Amino acid sequence: MNVKFLPEGKHVSIVFESTILDAALRGNIDLASECGGEALCGRCQVIIVEGSENLSPISEEEKKHLTNEKLRMGFRLACRAKVTGDVVVKIPISSRTGIQKLVVMGIEPPLIIDAHIKKAYIELAKSTLDDPTADDIRLLKKIKQVGLELKIDYGVAKKLPDVLRDGGWKITATIIGEKIVDIEAGDSPALYGFAVDIGTTKVAGFLVDLSTGELLHASGMINPQISFGEDVISRISHAMEKDGIKELQEAIVEAINSLIEKACDITDIHREKIYEVSIVGNTAMHHLFLGVNPEYIPFSPYPPAIAHSLNVDAAEMGIKIHPKGNIHVLPNIAGFVGGDAIACILATRIYEKDDLHMLIDLGTNTEIAFGYRDNIFICSTASGPAFEGAHIKQGMRAATGAISSMKIDKDVSFETIDDAKPRGICGSGIVDAIAEMLRVGIIDTAGEMFHEHPRVTEQGFVVAWKHETANGKDDIVITQKDIREVQKAKAAIQTGWRIMMNKLGVVERDIKKIIIAGAFGSFINPASAETIGMLPEVALSAVTFVGNTAGSGARMALKSQEERLKADEIARKVHYVELAAEEDFQMEYINALSMPHANLDYYPQVANSIKARISKVLLRKNKNLAS
Amino acid sequence: MNVKFLPEGKHVSIVFESTILDAALRGNIDLASECGGEALCGRCQVIIVEGSENLSPISEEEKKHLTNEKLRMGFRLACRAKVTGDVVVKIPISSRTGIQKLVVMGIEPPLIIDAHIKKAYIELAKSTLDDPTADDIRLLKKIKQVGLELKIDYGVAKKLPDVLRDGGWKITATIIGEKIVDIEAGDSPALYGFAVDIGTTKVAGFLVDLSTGELLHASGMINPQISFGEDVISRISHAMEKDGIKELQEAIVEAINSLIEKACDITDIHREKIYEVSIVGNTAMHHLFLGVNPEYIPFSPYPPAIAHSLNVDAAEMGIKIHPKGNIHVLPNIAGFVGGDAIACILATRIYEKDDLHMLIDLGTNTEIAFGYRDNIFICSTASGPAFEGAHIKQGMRAATGAISSMKIDKDVSFETIDDAKPRGICGSGIVDAIAEMLRVGIIDTAGEMFHEHPRVTEQGFVVAWKHETANGKDDIVITQKDIREVQKAKAAIQTGWRIMMNKLGVVERDIKKIIIAGAFGSFINPASAETIGMLPEVALSAVTFVGNTAGSGARMALKSQEERLKADEIARKVHYVELAAEEDFQMEYINALSMPHANLDYYPQVANSIKARISKVLLRKNKNLAS
Repeated sequence: MNVKFLPEGKHVSIVFESTILDAALRGNIDLASECGGEALCGRCQVIIVEGSENLSPISEEEKKHLTNEKLRMGFRLACRAKVTGDVVVKIPISSRTGIQKLVVMGIEPPLIIDAHIKKAYIELAKSTLDDPTADDIRLLKKIKQVGLELKIDYGVAKKLPDVLRDGGWKITATIIGEKIVDIEAGDSPALYGFAVDIGTTKVAGFLVDLSTGELLHASGMINPQISFGEDVISRISHAMEKDGIKELQEAIVEAINSLIEKACDITDIHREKIYEVSIVGNTAMHHLFLGVNPEYIPFSPYPPAIAHSLNVDAAEMGIKIHPKGNIHVLPNIAGFVGGDAIACILATRIYEKDDLHMLIDLGTNTEIAFGYRDNIFICSTASGPAFEGAHIKQGMRAATGAISSMKIDKDVSFETIDDAKPRGICGSGIVDAIAEMLRVGIIDTAGEMFHEHPRVTEQGFVVAWKHETANGKDDIVITQKDIREVQKAKAAIQTGWRIMMNKLGVVERDIKKIIIAGAFGSFINPASAETIGMLPEVALSAVTFVGNTAGSGARMALKSQEERLKADEIARKVHYVELAAEEDFQMEYINALSMPHANLDYYPQVANSIKARISKVLLRKNKNLAS
Repeated sequence: MNVKFLPEGKHVSIVFESTILDAALRGNIDLASECGGEALCGRCQVIIVEGSENLSPISEEEKKHLTNEKLRMGFRLACRAKVTGDVVVKIPISSRTGIQKLVVMGIEPPLIIDAHIKKAYIELAKSTLDDPTADDIRLLKKIKQVGLELKIDYGVAKKLPDVLRDGGWKITATIIGEKIVDIEAGDSPALYGFAVDIGTTKVAGFLVDLSTGELLHASGMINPQISFGEDVISRISHAMEKDGIKELQEAIVEAINSLIEKACDITDIHREKIYEVSIVGNTAMHHLFLGVNPEYIPFSPYPPAIAHSLNVDAAEMGIKIHPKGNIHVLPNIAGFVGGDAIACILATRIYEKDDLHMLIDLGTNTEIAFGYRDNIFICSTASGPAFEGAHIKQGMRAATGAISSMKIDKDVSFETIDDAKPRGICGSGIVDAIAEMLRVGIIDTAGEMFHEHPRVTEQGFVVAWKHETANGKDDIVITQKDIREVQKAKAAIQTGWRIMMNKLGVVERDIKKIIIAGAFGSFINPASAETIGMLPEVALSAVTFVGNTAGSGARMALKSQEERLKADEIARKVHYVELAAEEDFQMEYINALSMPHANLDYYPQVANSIKARISKVLLRKNKNLAS
């Protein structure tokens, strides 16, 4: 039977009871599916134009994701609608993937491949009356000749005599640490690893050839735990319910297994040739992956249960790789500074620098590492999801049609992702918009919007008029409330690095480099970020972007034992700063609410360039502080 | 309902469908049951005197163990006959346990208790804002203060935050090697271990308090693998069949679990407070316990698959102790020299001696270790079961009524175990009988019996006339064939130590001590053993008995890490002698067939004392050899 996709007009032929999503994949049609067809993300919404009678009945899951109005309009989830005859399907823009990629590759410094898992091909002399040595001793002696003192795992002991003889005394040993964990007859060099970055929202997996270090496949999916709660705190709440931890653990383990399965399918590699998985994630994701109770994390003094790195048997975790495979879980620093932050430090190498570096990993929680060599301070701030487009009236993620940058000259000009008609505004666009409004004086430094400007309506500041937009119905605006959200977010971040600057006794000109990490960070205009005070005022050339480095760190720890040790060392050496326990926290936060900051001396150039009126409130306050 | 036991005349009241064995246990009636009621040993045969209609029908298992004649005579297996009404039961002497104990304790030198598993009670400071250290780091730091660098097991990671808080930051950690494998809230010092000696016929288990080293319980049972074959070779044959290894492994694992359960029941200790099991056994028993294919052992060059000691997770083995408990399996030396031989060397401390020691562990396979310090040679000889009473016409094990020693002066005098009327002759009695016959000249040095003596009948040499015996029906005799069996057995042993003496270039007077190990060995008269040539001619004061030391060695390795390391060292340092590969093997064996030896120069005192005619055959042969 046939599925015709509109507006492409492409026909795809499929077998009975395939889903529309199957058809889209087969036809290489751009259709979003972040959960991989699990009816979790609700992204694969399509409109049935013809042949709705040739589809399976509307499922409960579809009813969950689609409003009654949408159901009436003919919307279905492509992953759930099974085709029993010809249909014509339209894909709305909102269901396109655009450039919003689930896997954003971060930088990865060159390193020497030295995986924790090794394989060795060994030829042994046959047992004879003159040399009737036991099989295990024969093997271990041979290995000792190359300087390795190993033990054999019980599973190897069990099959050793038969494998030795089947292989004609030629075998391949798989070695983890000081143990031979598997043997195969003959020469069998295949050796793969899988790196996983467990984000609160997304899970990314990377299949790596451990002999060459080559990345063979990368893929991502929505963290299925999202159905138990969108953010860390609501997940932890769920964990406190009966069987909550178990449910959350099973969900993420299944997700990782499906990423592994997918990568193996595509690369035609048997999953039992994957011998190790490395895991990074924030502390809560780390605990939930391990099935460790995370309930103490959100309460002062926010202690993680487990901070050291751990090696766990894959079989014990239910991760479907080689049954004797190892799961290496990177360490944590604090309740809100996890292995993902360590991975960033690892990938950016700031612990090797002699100059002062500031590393900002932007996200719902923003971690800021600041310092050099062994003097690195780190903190976490609850910056919230504003920069990812959430809690912003017309905010959206950085997908097709998102306004990603904006300027106000005589009039407003903007750019959208894929040059599509605007559908909303993403983080970088929001930062630009507020910086520009500040610069031209539409808002004051306290974020108060003035209504004189022709672009300011009752709704707020209009970035795009409705006739310019994709739906043609609504203006895309920045509201006063949006500005407040951004103020709070940037204040959280600014408070973090300001407290750390105070601690180190340094000023802006001491900062050699600011490194922005995180998938979203890459799109930001550094000038705008400085204007609103999210970053300290430094030369724009000192600001660099490294993308999503959590996955980079996971891959590095997979490929190199040295990097793994470094990660452990970083976790123990970095000085964690608990912002809430800092005396100047409240004052710093209040001062940081104004843009760029209550004390404009920190931002001489920004102060010079902005036309924004200085908030009277702040002037009064500053006077008080000075007196 | 009631079971009346004869000849005791004791009434035991039991519930419907209890077995006769249950009744006997309840009434404290002496009734043999070596398999623990599994219908494996066939030892619990009873005769139904009245009420046979009040019993369950005869089972297939009973048909296997009881001849048709016995079934007609009213024999039943007590473990299978279930009581549905009153019965009167007679227990024949052959079904009494007598002194034949399944567990024969060996000597055990004093040692410092230093178990591989430890417990530590730890009080931690509570997590605070000033010290928000992660739970795991807090714990490991505290432990590091006493000099231990540990890691935590995944299972511990999972429960750490809750146990810490449940215990008010006071916990007990269980430590195996460098890993914390369990934590409990509060102070929980209970720490037990279980040592197992897997014999081909018997399995013995010892429950040990690992804090004090105290032996809390010892028990034994028939090795249930016996239903798959009586000796090592027939077990290996069974292992080569489909699922054979699995069946044999399951049988022994179940046996060990039932020994553990029994010991725990009696001592009222929870089995999860047992954290480690140590295992010794001959190489084939070792392999079958581990589920390792033993099929290459019986074929030249007789290589074991596994010779190194192994640590295996109890859970992986199915041994029901603490789920994170460890199974320590002692090493092997060769295909026919296993961990039981190492245990003997360990317990007798011959590796610490500066003088020449000969250690003979008597059994179906007799291991002989010979030497001093690092110069210990070891071999194994297939001495067969003659000394255990098997393959001997009226041979029996050392149980009530066995003739255990014998003398010929004017007439024959003998002693029996428990001073009961004789029922047969056990190993020590057989050795005495043949030595005495040789001494008084009833047999020649080739073992040929002369018929002039009044005690020599057509059957053979009469040790006890029928009117003296328990059944009153048959003379107890030593037949010509019996003598041949003993000759072969002692020749095998003598060949072993003679070849080793040749290798070391030593003579009898160089031997400081001869140590006889093995349950059976303890009953032997050393003078008789020298007379027949089983031992070299040394001062009788130089011969000592140490009992069953395999279990001793297993307990030592359980209690002390140092002993465990010594066992590994012994396994690697001892020089294994493959007798079959020795050039002089055939010649030595032929010469050893005569008693005490073809060359009487080795036995000047025996030669002097015996009245035996020197075999003409041997005289001729010796002449040939001398020329």
